[in-house]
Amino acid sequence: MKYNVLPLSRLIEQFASLPGIGRKTAQRLAFYVLTMSKEQAQAFSSAIMDAHEKIHYCSVCRNYTDKETCEICDDPSRDRSVICVVEDAKDVAAFERTREYRGLYHVLGGLISPMDGIGPDQLFLKELLSRVNDGTVKEVIMATNPTIEGEATAMYIGKLLKPLGVTVSRLAYGVPVGSDLEYADEVTLYKAIENRSTM
Amino acid sequence: MKYNVLPLSRLIEQFASLPGIGRKTAQRLAFYVLTMSKEQAQAFSSAIMDAHEKIHYCSVCRNYTDKETCEICDDPSRDRSVICVVEDAKDVAAFERTREYRGLYHVLGGLISPMDGIGPDQLFLKELLSRVNDGTVKEVIMATNPTIEGEATAMYIGKLLKPLGVTVSRLAYGVPVGSDLEYADEVTLYKAIENRSTM
Repeated sequence: MKYNVLPLSRLIEQFASLPGIGRKTAQRLAFYVLTMSKEQAQAFSSAIMDAHEKIHYCSVCRNYTDKETCEICDDPSRDRSVICVVEDAKDVAAFERTREYRGLYHVLGGLISPMDGIGPDQLFLKELLSRVNDGTVKEVIMATNPTIEGEATAMYIGKLLKPLGVTVSRLAYGVPVGSDLEYADEVTLYKAIENRSTM
Repeated sequence: MKYNVLPLSRLIEQFASLPGIGRKTAQRLAFYVLTMSKEQAQAFSSAIMDAHEKIHYCSVCRNYTDKETCEICDDPSRDRSVICVVEDAKDVAAFERTREYRGLYHVLGGLISPMDGIGPDQLFLKELLSRVNDGTVKEVIMATNPTIEGEATAMYIGKLLKPLGVTVSRLAYGVPVGSDLEYADEVTLYKAIENRSTM
C-alpha cells in the first residue's frame, strides 16, 4: 500500500513472513483480522504466544509436547519395541493420522545434508542411539522422506544401528493409493513392480 | 492430530479459521510459529491485537485508519472534487496501487444484496450523500465490482446522486491488460468492441 496505516501494514508484513503466504493472501488475512470480534482477535493473538511458550521437545523422542514427555511416549498401550525414525514432528502427526502404527517415534530434527551444512551431529542421533541401547527396542523403522537427503540419512543411521543388534527397516516404495499410474515417475513404477505382492 | 498437544492444536484451529486457510496449511503455519524466535512470535502476536485495537473507520470516507481521518482524506494534494465509491477498503488499496488516481474515496462497506439481506441502509450511504451535498464534489465514480450486486448498487446510488447535480460515472469495461483474448468471456469482448477507441 502506498498510503500508510502502520498497524495494518505491520500485520500484513507479519502474515507475509509466514511460509507460503504471498502479499495478496497476507493482505486478505490482515483485513480479515480487522473484522474479527475483540475476543476472537485476543484468542488468536494469545494462541501464538501460548503455543510458542508452552511447547518444547519431548525429552525422550524430541516430538513437540507441552509436558516433560509427549503423549505418545507416555501412553502405556504403545509398543515400546518399535521406533519409527522421522525427520520432524509434522511426520509424527502424519503417521498418527493412519491410526495403524502403535509403536514409538524418534524425531531427528532434520536430515543429513552436506549442501546445507547439516551433519549427523546436528540431528538428535545420540538420543536415538541411547534409546536403542537400553535393550527394549527390537526394530527401528527408517521413515525419512524418499528423497536423496532422506535416503542418505536412513542409510547412515541404519549403518550405526545394525551393530547394536536391532532390525532396521525402511518404508516401502510403490505407487501412492488413489494415484494415477500415468503420472507416476519411472523409478516409483519400477519399485512398485519390483516389490509386487501376490493377490 | 489424534494425540493432543493442546496449545498446538489451538493454534492450528486459529489459523484454520482464517479464510482460505485449510487444515494442512494451518498445521504448516502453526509448526512454523514454533520455530520462530521469541521476539518474532511476540511481534506477530502483538501485531494482531495492535491492528485490531488501533484501526477503525475514517470518519469521512470509512476507509481503515488509525487516526480520526485517513491519510488520503488528510492529504491536501488530493483532488477533493472527485469521489471514487468502492465496496471495501481492499479496493481502496487496489486503486492506490495504480498511483494514478488523485481524488478521494468513499467505502460503502458492502453491496446491496437482497439475497444476503443487505439493503441500502446497511451501507455507508447517508455519509456519501452528505459529502456530495456539501458542494465541492463534481464527480462520483462508481467503482463497485462488475458483478450483479456491484452493478445494482452502482445503479441505485447513481439514481440517488444524479438529482444532486454531480456527474456520476462508472468504471470502463473491456479486456484486462495482459490477458489472453481466447479466455475472455463474450460479454467482456462485446463491451470491448463497443467501447473501442481510435488509435
